[in-house]
Amino acid sequence: MIKVSVMYPNELNARFDHDYYRDKHMPMVKEKMGDFCKYYTIDKGMFGGAPGTPPTYIGMCHLFCDSVEAFQAGFGPHAKEILADIANYTDLTPILQTSEVVVG
Amino acid sequence: MIKVSVMYPNELNARFDHDYYRDKHMPMVKEKMGDFCKYYTIDKGMFGGAPGTPPTYIGMCHLFCDSVEAFQAGFGPHAKEILADIANYTDLTPILQTSEVVVG
Repeated sequence: MIKVSVMYPNELNARFDHDYYRDKHMPMVKEKMGDFCKYYTIDKGMFGGAPGTPPTYIGMCHLFCDSVEAFQAGFGPHAKEILADIANYTDLTPILQTSEVVVG
Repeated sequence: MIKVSVMYPNELNARFDHDYYRDKHMPMVKEKMGDFCKYYTIDKGMFGGAPGTPPTYIGMCHLFCDSVEAFQAGFGPHAKEILADIANYTDLTPILQTSEVVVG
């Protein structure tokens, strides 16, 4: 299993609509990807190394897929539409990382 | 539910013993924290925005707890011992973030 993490840096005055992300964007991504995405998780940044310090990321999602190929097969055909929706909830440019799920 | 993410930057020539992390360190953390940690996950960085690019983090773990207070109650009493074990698998200084689990 692999996970594709999409991490939005917590920049000053960043715009990030957590409700839209949870209610519209991520369900749309899952619907487009179908079974190529087994499931996804969403995080809302609270704080960094200690309460009161800023979190590194204002929001994150993690897409869990059987393999890199499965992710590409599910995401690729819908990439344009999915990426076009980002402007509806943020101006931030996310950092992407694909990881092996060692313990899931 | 909250998650505490411990993210190890993928620095050049970074030392990170993924086997020790999976087999020794994280089970020890869970054993010390007991039920204050509901479960944890471990990621091993594969690549960044595209295959062949470096991942931002060489390794990550995520500790899932009922609340910030639960994390502190479980981690605090064992912090010294847990932190002292880091040198056994890496020289890296992790980035910490606590997030609200919006979708888990």
